[in-house]
Amino acid sequence: MPDVSVSDVTYEDLARLEQEFDDAELQTLREQHKIYAPLYKKRQEVVAKIPNFWALVLEQAPTEFENYTTPSDSQVFADALKSIEVERFEIDDPNGSPRSVVIRFYFDSNEYFEDKVLEKKFWHRRALDGWSGIVSEPVKINWKKGKDLTQGLTDAAFALFAARKKQDAAQNGSSNGKAKASKITKLPEYKAIIDKIENNTEAALSFFTWFGFISSHGYVSAEESAEANKKEAEKRAKWAKGEKVEDEDENDEKDDEDDFFDESEICPNGEEVAEIIVNELWPQAIKYFTAAQEADDDDLSELEDADIDDEDDDDEPVDIRSLVPGKGKGKENGSSASPPPKKRRT
Amino acid sequence: MPDVSVSDVTYEDLARLEQEFDDAELQTLREQHKIYAPLYKKRQEVVAKIPNFWALVLEQAPTEFENYTTPSDSQVFADALKSIEVERFEIDDPNGSPRSVVIRFYFDSNEYFEDKVLEKKFWHRRALDGWSGIVSEPVKINWKKGKDLTQGLTDAAFALFAARKKQDAAQNGSSNGKAKASKITKLPEYKAIIDKIENNTEAALSFFTWFGFISSHGYVSAEESAEANKKEAEKRAKWAKGEKVEDEDENDEKDDEDDFFDESEICPNGEEVAEIIVNELWPQAIKYFTAAQEADDDDLSELEDADIDDEDDDDEPVDIRSLVPGKGKGKENGSSASPPPKKRRT
Repeated sequence: MPDVSVSDVTYEDLARLEQEFDDAELQTLREQHKIYAPLYKKRQEVVAKIPNFWALVLEQAPTEFENYTTPSDSQVFADALKSIEVERFEIDDPNGSPRSVVIRFYFDSNEYFEDKVLEKKFWHRRALDGWSGIVSEPVKINWKKGKDLTQGLTDAAFALFAARKKQDAAQNGSSNGKAKASKITKLPEYKAIIDKIENNTEAALSFFTWFGFISSHGYVSAEESAEANKKEAEKRAKWAKGEKVEDEDENDEKDDEDDFFDESEICPNGEEVAEIIVNELWPQAIKYFTAAQEADDDDLSELEDADIDDEDDDDEPVDIRSLVPGKGKGKENGSSASPPPKKRRT
Repeated sequence: MPDVSVSDVTYEDLARLEQEFDDAELQTLREQHKIYAPLYKKRQEVVAKIPNFWALVLEQAPTEFENYTTPSDSQVFADALKSIEVERFEIDDPNGSPRSVVIRFYFDSNEYFEDKVLEKKFWHRRALDGWSGIVSEPVKINWKKGKDLTQGLTDAAFALFAARKKQDAAQNGSSNGKAKASKITKLPEYKAIIDKIENNTEAALSFFTWFGFISSHGYVSAEESAEANKKEAEKRAKWAKGEKVEDEDENDEKDDEDDFFDESEICPNGEEVAEIIVNELWPQAIKYFTAAQEADDDDLSELEDADIDDEDDDDEPVDIRSLVPGKGKGKENGSSASPPPKKRRT
């Protein structure tokens, strides 16, 4: 290999570069936050005045998102979704990550559940096995009697997580997430949720199972993450000094990373759903809303029975888009010339 | 509509917000550039020492990219691709756009074409019809005799574009891109390329047709873009003062935007290909390279006949990965412990 011996590139060089890229991504997220935070605030104020803004955004969502919602979910959004909010809640926390994100769904009083806010937090954490990524905790949804779209799945996920926390606390273990996961299978709540998933395949398609999502890897506690981050910082410090680093955990982990699958996870694609909300729906909300305005009436049939008075007194079903101001009424502030909607309701 | 009359949100408010988001995106691109530019420079220096780094990155590319390359293309990359480079060449140009990007492919001497560099520029421009997006110009590839993987398609695209420029210059027209496009169909070079596309459906699949890509909308010249940007700036200034704005062009355009399809475009998905290179392959190159290292030998069969001496003197085909330093030779700088490749060649 004549070309090789003259080279002095090692995998370590590439790994260090990867770390620098990782740091650059964090720095970019911080800069981006500074630029966008005031804009998002302003947008929330504007769109709060538009009825069904967020329901329309969700209707026009990218097809991947559509795969994770059912017509029943769309009905809940049309009936009661008031607002969506995305926030990087650890952006100013030196021990947190700019990648951590909270997604809040605000609802009006409705026939489905008691909650006015469903808040789903995603922490970016590092596991002792070398993995890093986002983890969440199941959110309790206080479903009204007979109205649970998930047929008990979110309750079961919440109960299992509580039992798991209790178990961990009792054992006060320092073992990592994967070792803990094997103990969890012995909990009665584990068997209960597995049964429920098997027997409610249709309910498992509801978007609301996403509130029960934990992780694509296995739960990682704040304590484990702090310990793993400390080890990582030590490793980087050694690297910086040119010292040799033992890193067995990481290799062990990466080999079986692909094999991990938690059967008790009620929303296996939860991370993807979160990514679509955070990286597509949230930043592009106005574009999706505008697209919904321009879509043919047919596309909105699912939302057309939204419960609102229509000043047209014919037999047509209510068109949710007719509720949006600025569509020909002319009651708004002076200039209404540009840019008008392309297709009006006929 | 009781809820509507109390609201004072108009489409104009949303459109203004969209403009602010657009500005924020430009600002983010500039910040991102500051953060990443020195890193990309460093990475280029490191990976230049790794034979076939970029060919391996392309092999491991996202599946959408794979759809735009043939086995013959992969062979060219394995044989001769030296480097890829992506640059936002108008980032410091007050009249340019941070969205404009140039992609350069560097090649060793090879049996396919004379060129050592194939440089594809994408300008972000605004058309007089209100559209904005990226446009490019066909790049001449000096294919060696009998080696043209596109069977004359890139030559035809280059010839048509030259004829089109000549026509435009002769007419000195200020008409917009779409009006010009209708005149183009009368050129003999137009008929020639249409015939060629119809009769070379297989050659049309070659990645190299991408060098002939123009636009998903129709070509927009620098002059047209400057004129359109001037009008846009005037519109924004009027808005800022609360004046009414006439904006007919924009409405005309948006209505038939989806209908536009240029039959003479030899790479209709050229914009998507550019986006994958700029937003996936370029920023994630090390990850793709590492994934290629970890992939099973089978996955690399297409590259295994790369023409390089192998110090293993058995009958096995050459494994391109064995060319990468740092895989057990230990000739590199002191510490070689972490993080090693997961799967070595056996």
